[in-house]
Amino acid sequence: MKLYGYWRSLATFRVRVALALKGLQLDAPEIPIDLIQGMQHDPAYRKVNPQAVVPALVLDDGGAPLVQSMAILEYLEETHPRPALLPQDPRGRARVRGLAQICVSDGHPFVVPRIRRYLEKVLGLDEPARDRWVAHWSLQALEALEGHLAHEPETGRYCHGDALTLADVCVASQVIAAKDYGRCDVSGVPTVMRIYGECMKTDAFARSHPSRQPGAPADLRA
Amino acid sequence: MKLYGYWRSLATFRVRVALALKGLQLDAPEIPIDLIQGMQHDPAYRKVNPQAVVPALVLDDGGAPLVQSMAILEYLEETHPRPALLPQDPRGRARVRGLAQICVSDGHPFVVPRIRRYLEKVLGLDEPARDRWVAHWSLQALEALEGHLAHEPETGRYCHGDALTLADVCVASQVIAAKDYGRCDVSGVPTVMRIYGECMKTDAFARSHPSRQPGAPADLRA
Repeated sequence: MKLYGYWRSLATFRVRVALALKGLQLDAPEIPIDLIQGMQHDPAYRKVNPQAVVPALVLDDGGAPLVQSMAILEYLEETHPRPALLPQDPRGRARVRGLAQICVSDGHPFVVPRIRRYLEKVLGLDEPARDRWVAHWSLQALEALEGHLAHEPETGRYCHGDALTLADVCVASQVIAAKDYGRCDVSGVPTVMRIYGECMKTDAFARSHPSRQPGAPADLRA
Repeated sequence: MKLYGYWRSLATFRVRVALALKGLQLDAPEIPIDLIQGMQHDPAYRKVNPQAVVPALVLDDGGAPLVQSMAILEYLEETHPRPALLPQDPRGRARVRGLAQICVSDGHPFVVPRIRRYLEKVLGLDEPARDRWVAHWSLQALEALEGHLAHEPETGRYCHGDALTLADVCVASQVIAAKDYGRCDVSGVPTVMRIYGECMKTDAFARSHPSRQPGAPADLRA
């Protein structure tokens, strides 16, 4: 397997964590597609992923690369079911997927480079206004998560009971968006932050963090 | 089952189509949550869905409502597997989910009412600029879909072979966003539009269209 990603990409982070949790190794180091430099638009990468986004996971069977982080996570779950990252019961699976989608559909989309570029180049927003945009939508997603996690009896050590699930993978990515990228005040989402802390105690999450990737600036990696 | 939705909501449309394809009936007409009037923020609805978005599907078992359209679609697929809306092979399932997520994560989020409200109230964008925003991101998602659908051998009468899948459900919602809401020129995405046309020939898709819902303005329903 080969993974095209970007150190700062939270969708790539999610795949990195899932691979680590499943004990799966890539055949080579993650292949960096620098989204700030615009490498995603290179014709060569467009052949890998016509949408010009990361991640893309290339399997060893010679077939088309897998795209979209949630689709990749579900694929890894189906083909490598142990350890399970979805509960066994359909209701529990729906809860885990619902929490995951709050992050993937209602939080993350607003902070990706192509959006920030539109805000700057087309709408002419200055940096403080762009920062407020990122912070607003990142925090709103965390508040939506808190609205579930703080009150629902299924919440345990992690998002759904005491075993890690795809919800934790996605929630952790959303916390990084809000805390590290959006510099949000996260004091209003204590349950989310407690769970994030639990996740980050595990090696799979900790070593997948953007700041730990080879492409990250030296001052972040320190 | 009870469904909270909104006539114009594309996430509600997706659930409506899936229920129809599975032959499932609601116990009562869809319960309208007027997102423009702000009904989603009513404390009573916040108890149904703390995120204050639609849809929410209430099951008859007395448990917490299911939220997030993709999570609901996966739940319906798991609990009512016939007719199947996902292929049997993991690779095919990953392709279908990837196409679905291009719509749900990379297209739809940018056109929902809370975003348009932020563009207007916080960023002070006038209506033409807001319309350009909706059109830009809606069309970009369709172009991403076209990049897959026009070139991949799995494409058939529908997105994945000749049977309807969750990809078609989501792609149809994205076409409505671009064509009906964004008034985009869709001449550059002929494969997407051909598939949309095939979908709309079916009763499940046609009668789920926003313009066919009781809450739609009379001139749209005509």
